[in-house]
Amino acid sequence: MALTLEPAFTLTVEVGEPREVGRTHAGYRRVIPILGGSVDGPALTGTVLPGGADWNVVRPDGAVHVWARYEIRSADGAVISVINEGLGYFDTPAGGVSMPTRPVFEVPEGGPTWLATGFFLGELRVGSEAGQVSIEVSRVLAI
Amino acid sequence: MALTLEPAFTLTVEVGEPREVGRTHAGYRRVIPILGGSVDGPALTGTVLPGGADWNVVRPDGAVHVWARYEIRSADGAVISVINEGLGYFDTPAGGVSMPTRPVFEVPEGGPTWLATGFFLGELRVGSEAGQVSIEVSRVLAI
Amino acid sequence: MALTLEPAFTLTVEVGEPREVGRTHAGYRRVIPILGGSVDGPALTGTVLPGGADWNVVRPDGAVHVWARYEIRSADGAVISVINEGLGYFDTPAGGVSMPTRPVFEVPEGGPTWLATGFFLGELRVGSEAGQVSIEVSRVLAI
Amino acid sequence: MALTLEPAFTLTVEVGEPREVGRTHAGYRRVIPILGGSVDGPALTGTVLPGGADWNVVRPDGAVHVWARYEIRSADGAVISVINEGLGYFDTPAGGVSMPTRPVFEVPEGGPTWLATGFFLGELRVGSEAGQVSIEVSRVLAI
Repeated sequence: MALTLEPAFTLTVEVGEPREVGRTHAGYRRVIPILGGSVDGPALTGTVLPGGADWNVVRPDGAVHVWARYEIRSADGAVISVINEGLGYFDTPAGGVSMPTRPVFEVPEGGPTWLATGFFLGELRVGSEAGQVSIEVSRVLAI
Repeated sequence: MALTLEPAFTLTVEVGEPREVGRTHAGYRRVIPILGGSVDGPALTGTVLPGGADWNVVRPDGAVHVWARYEIRSADGAVISVINEGLGYFDTPAGGVSMPTRPVFEVPEGGPTWLATGFFLGELRVGSEAGQVSIEVSRVLAI
Repeated sequence: MALTLEPAFTLTVEVGEPREVGRTHAGYRRVIPILGGSVDGPALTGTVLPGGADWNVVRPDGAVHVWARYEIRSADGAVISVINEGLGYFDTPAGGVSMPTRPVFEVPEGGPTWLATGFFLGELRVGSEAGQVSIEVSRVLAI
Repeated sequence: MALTLEPAFTLTVEVGEPREVGRTHAGYRRVIPILGGSVDGPALTGTVLPGGADWNVVRPDGAVHVWARYEIRSADGAVISVINEGLGYFDTPAGGVSMPTRPVFEVPEGGPTWLATGFFLGELRVGSEAGQVSIEVSRVLAI
C-alpha cells in the first residue's frame, strides 16, 4: 500500500440531544444536531458552526451508518461545507471505541483548496465529555 | 401520461438567515437553516421541527439545485425524516415563482407508511412573508 | 397545484437478463443491464446507448427502489448521461403496471441544455415485448 | 491516529474504450465501461463481472472525481455490489500515479458480511497493460 495518512486537524464537535425517528425501512434512524465546536491542527484551525446534524442509522445488519452535514469556518474566515460519512460498529462488543469516516469538503474561492480536492479519512470518537464527538482528520496521500 | 397528481399536504417552513459558503467547484453554495413550521392538508397534519437546512447551490449553468434535509412530526407523534431535492430557476427572468421538487420521506413503524413508499412531487414557493417557504406536496399515482 | 406536466419523449429501453445479488442489508438487490434502445418524442429523438444498468432493490418495507444509470445519444450527436430513480410498487396487487420516476440528465455543451436544467417526471412501464421497458418522460413546469 | 490499514485484496479491472459525454455543468464527464477482471488477495478471491462503468468527471477545480458501480463474484459464488468513489489528481504534475478511493460493498446473505459492514480504502492505479486498472483494497480498522 503506497497510500499514507498525514494528520491534518481534529474536529471537536458539540452535539445536542438525539432526535429519534425510530425504526424505518433503512434501519433505526436518529438525528443528532450539531451545536458548535472547534477545528485544531497543523493544517487548519477554526470553528465548527452551529447547524446541520448527523443523520445516522443502525442498519438491519447491525452496522452503524453515519452521515453528517454541517459547516466549519477557518481562522481566515472561509466558510467550508462538510459531509462526513462513516460506517462501522461503534463502542460495542463488535467494534472499537472509534469509527472510520470519509469527510468531504466544499471550499469557497480563496479558501483552502487542498481541502476540496484532497481525499481524507476521519476517525470519529465519542469525546471524554458528554455531548462531544471528535473526528481526527488525516489526508490520504497517494505517492 | 397516466400519472396523476393527488394533493397531499403543504409544508410551511420558517427559515433563518442564509449562511454563505460562496463559490465552490459545485457552484455558489448557500445554507438556509430550518427553524420550524407546520404541515397542513388532507393527508397529513403536523409540525416542521427545527433543525436541518437547505444546502442549495446555483450551478455553473445557472440552474438552482435545492437539497434540504430536516424532520417533521405528524399530529399522531411520528417523527418523519424529509429529504427534499429540487432543480430549476427560481423567481428569475428564466423561471417562475415556484420550483418543482421531489421530497422523499423516511417513516418509523406505526407512522404513515404511504409517505415512505409513495412517490411525491413538491412545488416550492417563497412565502408571502419574509423567512417563509412553502412546499405543496402531491402524491404521484401510477394508474 | 400550479405544476404542469408537458410530454417530452419516450425512452424505449432494451434490457438483459437480471443479475441477482440477492438479499442484502438494503433489501433484495437485482441488476438489470441496459442493452440499447431508442428515444422518440416531440422534444428529443435519439438512441439509448448500451452500457450501464438498473440497480434496483426491493426494500424491507416492500417498496421497489429503481436506480438506473446509462447514456443516450441525441439525433444531433450529443451524448447525454441519465440517472433515473423511481419508487413504488410495480405490477403487483399493491401497485399498478407503471411506476413514477425522476430522471436527471447531464448534458454536454452544445447539447439540449433544457434537459440538464429542467425537472422531469418519468412513468416506467414494462414493455409489451419481453426484455423491454419504456419510460415516458414529461417536463414538470412551474408556472 | 489509531486507524490501521489491513490489506484485503486487489481488484484487477479490465476496462473498455471511454465514452465521452464532454463538458457539462459538473465538469468534463467520461464513462469507462467495466469488461471483467479478477479479485485476488488474502481476504477475498473471485472475478469482476462485466457490466457497469466508471462515470468519472474532471471537476471545474481540476480534481478528478471517480464513481464506479459494478459487481464482483466471490470464489464461493456470492454476487457482491461495488460502488467505488475516489477523488484526486491522477497521473498529472499535480498528482501521483494513483488515487485514493472508498469502495462500498453490498453483500447477500451467506456472503462475506465483513465486506458489507467494514470500511475500506482503495488505491486506484492505471495498470501496466492498456485497458487495465487495479484497486488495492485495504480494510480500515479502528482500534
